[in-house]
Amino acid sequence: MSAYRPAEIGMPLADVDTPALILDLDAFERNLDRMDASLKDRSIRLRPHAKSHKCPEIALRQMQRGAVGVCCQKVSEAEAMVDGGVPDVLIANEVVGVPKLRRLAALAKRARIAVCADDSGNVTALDEAARAAGVKLDVLVEINVGANRCGVAPGEPALRLAQAIARSRNLRFAGLQAYQGAAQHLRKVEERRAAIEDACALVRETTELLEDARIACERVTGAGTGTYMFEAVSGVYHELQAGSYIFMDVDYARNEWTESGVPRFEHSLFVWTTAMSRPTPERAVVDAGLKASSVDSGMPRVVELEGAEYVKASDEHGVLRLNGNVRLAVGEKLKLIPGHCDPTVNLYDHYVCMRDGRVEALWPISARGAVW
Amino acid sequence: MSAYRPAEIGMPLADVDTPALILDLDAFERNLDRMDASLKDRSIRLRPHAKSHKCPEIALRQMQRGAVGVCCQKVSEAEAMVDGGVPDVLIANEVVGVPKLRRLAALAKRARIAVCADDSGNVTALDEAARAAGVKLDVLVEINVGANRCGVAPGEPALRLAQAIARSRNLRFAGLQAYQGAAQHLRKVEERRAAIEDACALVRETTELLEDARIACERVTGAGTGTYMFEAVSGVYHELQAGSYIFMDVDYARNEWTESGVPRFEHSLFVWTTAMSRPTPERAVVDAGLKASSVDSGMPRVVELEGAEYVKASDEHGVLRLNGNVRLAVGEKLKLIPGHCDPTVNLYDHYVCMRDGRVEALWPISARGAVW
Repeated sequence: MSAYRPAEIGMPLADVDTPALILDLDAFERNLDRMDASLKDRSIRLRPHAKSHKCPEIALRQMQRGAVGVCCQKVSEAEAMVDGGVPDVLIANEVVGVPKLRRLAALAKRARIAVCADDSGNVTALDEAARAAGVKLDVLVEINVGANRCGVAPGEPALRLAQAIARSRNLRFAGLQAYQGAAQHLRKVEERRAAIEDACALVRETTELLEDARIACERVTGAGTGTYMFEAVSGVYHELQAGSYIFMDVDYARNEWTESGVPRFEHSLFVWTTAMSRPTPERAVVDAGLKASSVDSGMPRVVELEGAEYVKASDEHGVLRLNGNVRLAVGEKLKLIPGHCDPTVNLYDHYVCMRDGRVEALWPISARGAVW
Repeated sequence: MSAYRPAEIGMPLADVDTPALILDLDAFERNLDRMDASLKDRSIRLRPHAKSHKCPEIALRQMQRGAVGVCCQKVSEAEAMVDGGVPDVLIANEVVGVPKLRRLAALAKRARIAVCADDSGNVTALDEAARAAGVKLDVLVEINVGANRCGVAPGEPALRLAQAIARSRNLRFAGLQAYQGAAQHLRKVEERRAAIEDACALVRETTELLEDARIACERVTGAGTGTYMFEAVSGVYHELQAGSYIFMDVDYARNEWTESGVPRFEHSLFVWTTAMSRPTPERAVVDAGLKASSVDSGMPRVVELEGAEYVKASDEHGVLRLNGNVRLAVGEKLKLIPGHCDPTVNLYDHYVCMRDGRVEALWPISARGAVW
């Protein structure tokens, strides 16, 4: 983490230098409240994905509102969360290779840690790492419920892997990881609902086999911001891993959200940028390019400036097309909504947290770059 | 910069944990030599773009081979270069806003610094910042030679801005920035040649006006890896800003390179990754996703594993499609060529520098994240 501080406490937004990652605290807290309210009176736990924010300050606020812990994708991300005071982390992913397994087992001495597996050789390696560290590790079987990424097939293959975990002296079978990642950005509500119904059928097929084999499945975990309400009401999931709901982004905003009971989360995360060039009436160039706002899921969106569209990103430039008589002088600052919040957050060392137009806090993104 | 060290000196590649950014030093040095040889006996200077590598260790090696200094895109990048011992930096970009202009002027006391401008108000602000710091700043006029990003129009508008700079008490008109960024990835040699011929005509139109106005234009600077030989032989450019030639990437490899005199640069930069899941015979998942290899210009490419194609990136997963009987077990490591080197470098804190299969050095990417 660099020594650079992007802003000082109390500073008005206009004085915050650019590019900076701005968090609107009121909007962020409303999103926390909306999630809370949408799960009220439901017997389902929230375990938000920390890969979205990479920030213990945020994880702890999620836990203050009832989250049972967080998910991470990498051991290094989990280490940053535990270092920041988070007591319960599910690595919702496979962890492979001796150095990482050693660190994972060591972390399990400091916090409640669980991890996923989809390979019997990896289960053996997890058992050995747990033995060497003198810990008992919680391991979930990841099943493929339609994302076609990691995960064993539901049904018999999942049962066999659960049995292998249950037989391992230093491991404990802790449930099923069943994340339907491919469903999150299906644009229509009905498509997302159908994809999660299919996923639920695959989970049920597996939990019934586990039950027949007298292997307790204490936890089925999955879901994202795009679908979580379907998992919440499914009766088969126990934990929800939504992450992006706290921020939202352009890609999630493209989803239709007409389902009753699904709250409208609002944009709370912005890239603050300066118009650095006004070469023609139809073009402005801002100082936030693809090293300031990830374009993997499309361009960022200009807000609060009618007629301006962000059309092209290079490393350190964003080209805006201006339609009509848009007023935007060199040196003026504006807000962008990132195309995809997770990798955009990973480009910064701090959130500049704003309330009532002033900087209230700087929250370190301490798991920035934690890919190992 | 995190305290994490991705490898130890002397370690064999197989032991380097993943994801890691690997630099093949022999290939890197051959690329330096190729650039050197291609410019031998030509009266043109090389000023490589440091936005590609963000690493003073690399900048100093480029200068040892005859580069006159480096380019940067941001003041913070230039600060990192000067801190690392680079004595001569051109910020090949506009710098806007009082805090950045103050830092720019302060930096000009520590190194030879030049900056670009395309706006008369910005010229006034540069003059004021230089006055306040007690320095004389070199300012180039950026002209639009076809990239349609920043830059005033060539000809009269450029002349007027050069006159404004020349009139400013604390500035010195230092030439023209004329980078044709849109030409770099035109796939056919003839398309790139034609684009640079057009750019040269626009430069000439401008330098002739400057000459008529008795304003000395000591430097025309521009070019990238895709086109630099055309600028080199043009007779109108004095400095080349190629950056990616040291690493190459998948996007540049898609260019045709049949022109005699243009060396074939080779891939020296790789993302080292582990197969973390083998769910089906046709699919493997690696631990390098879009937070480990930027996908803004397309997917990374698998090397040294026939029949494997990287087809989909999520945050921390890369999905490989395996055609035929590809052997790749969970835990095996492989190399990827990044789709786009610049933003991929920006995801790491170190280059793991390899020679003869062992780690020779770790070079800090000290300008990582330097966007401000």
